[in-house]
Amino acid sequence: MGKVLILGAGAMGAALTVPLCQNGREVNLWGTEFDVEVLEAMAKTGQHIRLGIALPRGVMLFPFAELERACQDVEIAVLAVASAGVRSVMQRLAAFLRERMIIVSVAKGLEEDPKTGKPLTMLEVIESGLPPALRNKIPVVAVGGPSIAKEVAERIPTEVIFASKDLAAAEYCRRVFTTPVYRVRVTTDVIGVELCAALKNAFAVVVGMCDGVKGKMNAGVEMHNSKATLLWEAVVELAKIVQAMGGREETVLGPAGVGDLYVTAAGGRTRLFGEMLGSGMSPGEALEEMKKRHLTVEAYPAAKKGYELAQALDKDGRLNINDLPLLKQIHAVLFEGKVAEAAIWDYFAAL
Amino acid sequence: MGKVLILGAGAMGAALTVPLCQNGREVNLWGTEFDVEVLEAMAKTGQHIRLGIALPRGVMLFPFAELERACQDVEIAVLAVASAGVRSVMQRLAAFLRERMIIVSVAKGLEEDPKTGKPLTMLEVIESGLPPALRNKIPVVAVGGPSIAKEVAERIPTEVIFASKDLAAAEYCRRVFTTPVYRVRVTTDVIGVELCAALKNAFAVVVGMCDGVKGKMNAGVEMHNSKATLLWEAVVELAKIVQAMGGREETVLGPAGVGDLYVTAAGGRTRLFGEMLGSGMSPGEALEEMKKRHLTVEAYPAAKKGYELAQALDKDGRLNINDLPLLKQIHAVLFEGKVAEAAIWDYFAAL
Repeated sequence: MGKVLILGAGAMGAALTVPLCQNGREVNLWGTEFDVEVLEAMAKTGQHIRLGIALPRGVMLFPFAELERACQDVEIAVLAVASAGVRSVMQRLAAFLRERMIIVSVAKGLEEDPKTGKPLTMLEVIESGLPPALRNKIPVVAVGGPSIAKEVAERIPTEVIFASKDLAAAEYCRRVFTTPVYRVRVTTDVIGVELCAALKNAFAVVVGMCDGVKGKMNAGVEMHNSKATLLWEAVVELAKIVQAMGGREETVLGPAGVGDLYVTAAGGRTRLFGEMLGSGMSPGEALEEMKKRHLTVEAYPAAKKGYELAQALDKDGRLNINDLPLLKQIHAVLFEGKVAEAAIWDYFAAL
Repeated sequence: MGKVLILGAGAMGAALTVPLCQNGREVNLWGTEFDVEVLEAMAKTGQHIRLGIALPRGVMLFPFAELERACQDVEIAVLAVASAGVRSVMQRLAAFLRERMIIVSVAKGLEEDPKTGKPLTMLEVIESGLPPALRNKIPVVAVGGPSIAKEVAERIPTEVIFASKDLAAAEYCRRVFTTPVYRVRVTTDVIGVELCAALKNAFAVVVGMCDGVKGKMNAGVEMHNSKATLLWEAVVELAKIVQAMGGREETVLGPAGVGDLYVTAAGGRTRLFGEMLGSGMSPGEALEEMKKRHLTVEAYPAAKKGYELAQALDKDGRLNINDLPLLKQIHAVLFEGKVAEAAIWDYFAAL
């Protein structure tokens, strides 16, 4: 039984040590150049400062310079870095990969193909970073589903989905990660899981917008009625995009789609960014405010890429962009100067 | 253009005057014996004390004794009383019904057939209360979907669904009620809409349970991951019951199902009752506490009736009750002495 290496000591990377150690796995946790502070604090106190928990005993910490040592006896390498860092980590990792290792990716988002300009999923980015001799010899597994890191670390019941073209690899990882509170489904619908993960922020932002609009109105009035309709429309439109890209509706109607959309809308940065827009800030002002608070905004690029993807699919005749009225309203708010409140009201008026 | 009569001056009855008056409709609002205080306050101040808003000008108020006068020139009668009151209101109303009137019902819940003991939908209760000469001559329209009364009254965008065997009647009502912020879909899937309305409380209670469990744990840990999975499982199990009863999945995957479940789980009495259970109260203690606060608990009878319905469908071979693991756990908490926390953890462990 080989070790599991987690690349990236941020909240999600650290949280995943919990189910793995609960299963008796030996875990190496490697910090990137951005994790120096976190790693030092952990080495001293055992506490992960962002998660606010003590990591399980036995997790071996490896600083940035010691990737080679961290890779020794590893059978599963978990990419738990921000999507923008996947390419560079793959470059470093490539030399230490061996046949029959498995890569698991929790990175989310679409990246632009530097050659064609078309959107690439994280899995495609990872595969393109494999050494030529190892192409198709290292299965890649993408993780989707509602999984707030803090909750995983605190052993709150969580259901996720592992997607891979290599179902046996996904099944193997399922057995490695599954605990009574960390439940794992498997699927071969990689594109479905990846698109859900990449686009959920684009849609969930509208629920935050409702909170912002609410804040401007009579005290005490919620917008639950509106949110219920908007969240479900998000699921429906996500399913249309996924199906147009060859993914499966059942993937959207499961942890990767409905589930992840729900938690993204319930809290966190995307919701906060949406709230700022709903309260009347322009996208530029909201982005600046988020930057001041050192919070990345995934919703903004996700909405841009999602809309471009929808345009491309419309052009190819694979969907009709007019069947995505919510995405159009969200795009209008983020990139066409439309007021968030007007976008929500217009969406309903057109029903 | 006849008048619209709303029977029941509670929050929902009063809220529906808003879209109707926005459309220039003349509205009569009749108070039951439970609405005396509300009606008196409204007559004096114009304010609806429970909604905290002033009703639109022109709404005519009719006290309990003046039902006959309230029925004059009425073309649509909206039943906006609690489900327990539907039978008695129908008895009083029967004498004043005329051919070509339409009854719209916002009452929700299943009632036991006094003869067979089988569950009756509100629509069946209403139809059985029609005078024999008017059977099949007065269409009945059931309203489903996420519609918190306060939000409807405050003109927060809301999408609902009107269901009737008589599609033309549902369409007519759609035109009468629809405003830019009160959107109405129509369907002939009456059983689907009615079952969603009746059973959503049975399922939504589990989201409240998560809040109760959360309250007992380390400060700051949410259970969004769990809620996401549980809410979606509720949708899936609701769809199984609806389909076994001859309703349509598409009804559950719309305002009546997903939408209403979402708002029921987001706030209100059902969530509060669930939170009490999750925090460790027994169902008896929680019911008593709710009674002290003068709050009806729809989730409790809904779970009982939903479970009995599932058992009956299982016996008839129309579904397998083991395919409803969440409903089984909820029933175990409410009627078999199981601890809510254990029920949630067991649900996940069995995935």
